[in-house]
Amino acid sequence: MRVAVIGGSEIGAETRERAVEVGRLLGERGHAVVCGGLSGVMEAVCKGASETGAETIGILPGEDRDAANEWVTTPIATGLGHARNPLVVCNGDAVVAIDGAAGTLSELGHALVFHRPIAGLGTHEIELEGFEAVETPTEAVEHVEGAIEERSYSDD
Amino acid sequence: MRVAVIGGSEIGAETRERAVEVGRLLGERGHAVVCGGLSGVMEAVCKGASETGAETIGILPGEDRDAANEWVTTPIATGLGHARNPLVVCNGDAVVAIDGAAGTLSELGHALVFHRPIAGLGTHEIELEGFEAVETPTEAVEHVEGAIEERSYSDD
Amino acid sequence: MRVAVIGGSEIGAETRERAVEVGRLLGERGHAVVCGGLSGVMEAVCKGASETGAETIGILPGEDRDAANEWVTTPIATGLGHARNPLVVCNGDAVVAIDGAAGTLSELGHALVFHRPIAGLGTHEIELEGFEAVETPTEAVEHVEGAIEERSYSDD
Amino acid sequence: MRVAVIGGSEIGAETRERAVEVGRLLGERGHAVVCGGLSGVMEAVCKGASETGAETIGILPGEDRDAANEWVTTPIATGLGHARNPLVVCNGDAVVAIDGAAGTLSELGHALVFHRPIAGLGTHEIELEGFEAVETPTEAVEHVEGAIEERSYSDD
Repeated sequence: MRVAVIGGSEIGAETRERAVEVGRLLGERGHAVVCGGLSGVMEAVCKGASETGAETIGILPGEDRDAANEWVTTPIATGLGHARNPLVVCNGDAVVAIDGAAGTLSELGHALVFHRPIAGLGTHEIELEGFEAVETPTEAVEHVEGAIEERSYSDD
Repeated sequence: MRVAVIGGSEIGAETRERAVEVGRLLGERGHAVVCGGLSGVMEAVCKGASETGAETIGILPGEDRDAANEWVTTPIATGLGHARNPLVVCNGDAVVAIDGAAGTLSELGHALVFHRPIAGLGTHEIELEGFEAVETPTEAVEHVEGAIEERSYSDD
Repeated sequence: MRVAVIGGSEIGAETRERAVEVGRLLGERGHAVVCGGLSGVMEAVCKGASETGAETIGILPGEDRDAANEWVTTPIATGLGHARNPLVVCNGDAVVAIDGAAGTLSELGHALVFHRPIAGLGTHEIELEGFEAVETPTEAVEHVEGAIEERSYSDD
Repeated sequence: MRVAVIGGSEIGAETRERAVEVGRLLGERGHAVVCGGLSGVMEAVCKGASETGAETIGILPGEDRDAANEWVTTPIATGLGHARNPLVVCNGDAVVAIDGAAGTLSELGHALVFHRPIAGLGTHEIELEGFEAVETPTEAVEHVEGAIEERSYSDD
């Protein structure tokens, strides 16, 4: 599947490590990553995923593909500014949120609008169905894998 | 000024009454209203504002202006779907949020990205600077008026 | 009705005069104007329309409402960059195109996608149904009025 | 480089053959393809490119990735409707236009706004700098390759 990873663009060392680990785990399990393509969590998750050879899509706010971080394999320029946020979460089957401020909050809202299951790792506490707070990168990845698998069954 | 009012599209009688009152107060004090143009809080706030002759702008997700509720004086069709949410809050100087679910959460996030002061009336609890929980329509309107006035001073 | 007026942002004196006249005629006949809100044809048509007291909506590429020209009565900020072009023509029942370069060409294409009747005054020559080249501001306004009236009949 | 290929969604056998050939040539020369992801020219060019193992990106108007044609390797859902058109051409370094109606015309306008060199193969005749009418798939590919190479030199 393809997992959208959202989070802060300015992060500390511990958050960076967690985001790299989320990317690595997703890639090892055969998932592609989609994110906002810039710095912070976006860069770290792409770095981790790219170590495994996974596809990393970066959906950028500006018109210039070259603004993507170096670990993005498929940069998509939008020129939409903040209106690119819904596109980021719409392009994942599920969402992992790590840290983050107001922009991440907007993406969490959009993810719930699109009925994407969300694992939240040290991010905003959301009291809506579909959001699950988790403690570790492994729990985050296992939560979204489980949620998507469950949906596949109930679609049968 | 122009105030963005956001909130649920399916609401109960009490919420509807509060939204009408917010619209009426904004209009009486000479403010224009901008919202998502559809039902629920959007419709109620336009109804209240239009009773005072205020301008009510509805920024719609679809391509058809006629989808606006009957109290919208200036419907704007976008065809952007959920990507119209940032446009709603971007077009107000401040934001009043009433009730609401995931779509409203995305708009709260965008409002904070755009540094809009927000009064929250029975909506999500946001732990970010710029969001103030209030208890009544009057408090909501007074909060956003005060926040904008304060900014004008500090811009001098 | 509401008429979208599109055209160049850098124009000469003659084009400016024509655009002012188109705005004045639209306003005198009770129509609102929607445009891109900036300079050139956009500014001139708003000036002409506002002399008659007509509503002039400016759908801006940026996030700042204050970027609108002084004759816009209802500025709408989008932050979408060039992706705001389809919104401009979508918000008119018909389109008048005056002069213009590549941006105007994109709007002409979008106008035809949205099945809007178009009067072209010294603009690109379009060989698609729905586009009519005209010679004067009066012909432009009469063409779009006639085209909309015809549609109303055929809808009965 | 990455080349945006635009054109009609309903096409005849000859146009289909040309679009497949454009895709094959682009892929053989090591270029990626980006398009609107749906039927007609979009499908044919992806089919041709995918035979060579090239990446084919489809930027879709709707919210559902599964709407992409089967030859798209990287589907991007936008939910923006017609406002996704500028994104298609923005994501190529150059543009090949094949056949097409109003939607293609809007994309040609956007491509010129973004200063992308364009090769036009049986499409609208555009009288603006940057557009070159060509006769064959090979000429189309060679034109955009040459135009991009020239730009690289002049950037030095």
